[in-house]
Amino acid sequence: VERIVECIPNFSEGRRPEVIAAIAESIRATPGVRLLDFSANADHNRLVVTFVGTPEACAEAAFAATATAARLIDMERHQGEHPRLGATDVIPFVPVKGVTLDECVTVAKGLGARIGAELGIPVYLYEAAATRPERRNLADVRRGQYEALKDEITRPERCPDYGPCRLPPTTGATIVGARPPLVAFNINLGTSEVEIAKRVAKAVRGSSGGFVNVKALGVMLKERNLAQVTLNMVNYLDTPLHRAYELVRVEAARYGVAVVGCEIVGLVPLGAVLDAARHYLQLEEFQREQVLEVRLWE
Amino acid sequence: VERIVECIPNFSEGRRPEVIAAIAESIRATPGVRLLDFSANADHNRLVVTFVGTPEACAEAAFAATATAARLIDMERHQGEHPRLGATDVIPFVPVKGVTLDECVTVAKGLGARIGAELGIPVYLYEAAATRPERRNLADVRRGQYEALKDEITRPERCPDYGPCRLPPTTGATIVGARPPLVAFNINLGTSEVEIAKRVAKAVRGSSGGFVNVKALGVMLKERNLAQVTLNMVNYLDTPLHRAYELVRVEAARYGVAVVGCEIVGLVPLGAVLDAARHYLQLEEFQREQVLEVRLWE
Repeated sequence: VERIVECIPNFSEGRRPEVIAAIAESIRATPGVRLLDFSANADHNRLVVTFVGTPEACAEAAFAATATAARLIDMERHQGEHPRLGATDVIPFVPVKGVTLDECVTVAKGLGARIGAELGIPVYLYEAAATRPERRNLADVRRGQYEALKDEITRPERCPDYGPCRLPPTTGATIVGARPPLVAFNINLGTSEVEIAKRVAKAVRGSSGGFVNVKALGVMLKERNLAQVTLNMVNYLDTPLHRAYELVRVEAARYGVAVVGCEIVGLVPLGAVLDAARHYLQLEEFQREQVLEVRLWE
Repeated sequence: VERIVECIPNFSEGRRPEVIAAIAESIRATPGVRLLDFSANADHNRLVVTFVGTPEACAEAAFAATATAARLIDMERHQGEHPRLGATDVIPFVPVKGVTLDECVTVAKGLGARIGAELGIPVYLYEAAATRPERRNLADVRRGQYEALKDEITRPERCPDYGPCRLPPTTGATIVGARPPLVAFNINLGTSEVEIAKRVAKAVRGSSGGFVNVKALGVMLKERNLAQVTLNMVNYLDTPLHRAYELVRVEAARYGVAVVGCEIVGLVPLGAVLDAARHYLQLEEFQREQVLEVRLWE
């Protein structure tokens, strides 16, 4: 049976094309992986690469890219909008096919140990790979960012899972982990009052009483003068898209506001789309294998 | 670019395993095709085979299977519930990838000409390949079945598109054509009154004022004591599943009856499932390529 994981490392470089190319090339050149996507953002000064392959090949590619980033990125000179701890900031592994989340945890730990030992970079494990509850959440691990970590890393509670208890001169620290596929889901409201989107987001997200597995913010979509609820669905298996969508719809209706349109940003697992069809068409026993293309491809 | 069509020939044999095996084997043995499914029904005395491949390979496999069926099936001895004209009753070609419906029409015509010329079997073109409006609908072409056709084939209006204007001793005639993918969609109602399902089916199907591209019947689902609206969605691109589902829901509610569950029978194109998710989640610009598995496989 084919075993496939997805790896989506984030690097602290979104401006210098030659550095971006070198990192992407370290991944592309690794046998057994397939580079699907990379996108660099200059404001964030950050690069997000998506690739897939066997667990072993993906770990190898992630290691190679981390080594390249360590060589070419100097965190002492790095500035950008997006929070970060290091040159290779975060490396999540996501199960795609024939692989469990637990196996991705094993892959993450193996890679973390190797980055610590061979590159001398402090590594924190997060999400499903976390060794302490307070390290599950990425935002908690990244608190204070690179600048604060320089002092705090010597404290026991910030001691990394692998590598030295001090920061090297330029690389910062790297966060490695495993998580279910994340779906970025935006819901546009028929209002220009961002306050309404903020209140709806508060009702939907787990941190303020809503759904576990949902992160949400109310923001302004300036180019269309619409308020938007922007969601991160971090476990579509337990908390599916349609449930968040319906709750946003109901909460917005409370203010006389309708949903005018939605958007899935980037990639979405087939399973998440099938779940929506199953729910709304009330399908009783619909199997993934009933999709013609799945029969052709799997 | 890869070019793939689906071919779903129906043969008038659902009881003799050795004949079923011989037909399936003619298809499986053709290079460039992949046999996905075959299902034989003894009551219908009918075999439905599903396979995919390049247009050229699928035409070759369909020809080989038609020759096998002509050799092994005697229509003079055939009895079964399902309407039929010949040993190989109907051969539809369906575009799957990198192929248009018009190209499937070309494939159907090429195959029809060859069956007529090389096997001496009368061939009628139907659906998108039809040469006359009254031959578009399969039920119209099959009217009176094999038994009536023996006399009627000499009439000008029943003259075949290819092959002789008389029936050979045992094979009957074959119907060849091209159509968009068909989705078999059943909607179960929370009532045991089949009359309600019949009325709802009448409202939904094109033949009595409902949606073009939808065929529908009200039937009884005996094992669950539920009435069912059973639909054939013959063009999900123009008439999507969610539109039929919503109309059934509204029409059934008129009688105080709810939809208790639905079922997609057999295979469904990915596009039909994506359309449902797009509709209900109000997705504005969702692309097929955003499905992770599509990126992996296509």
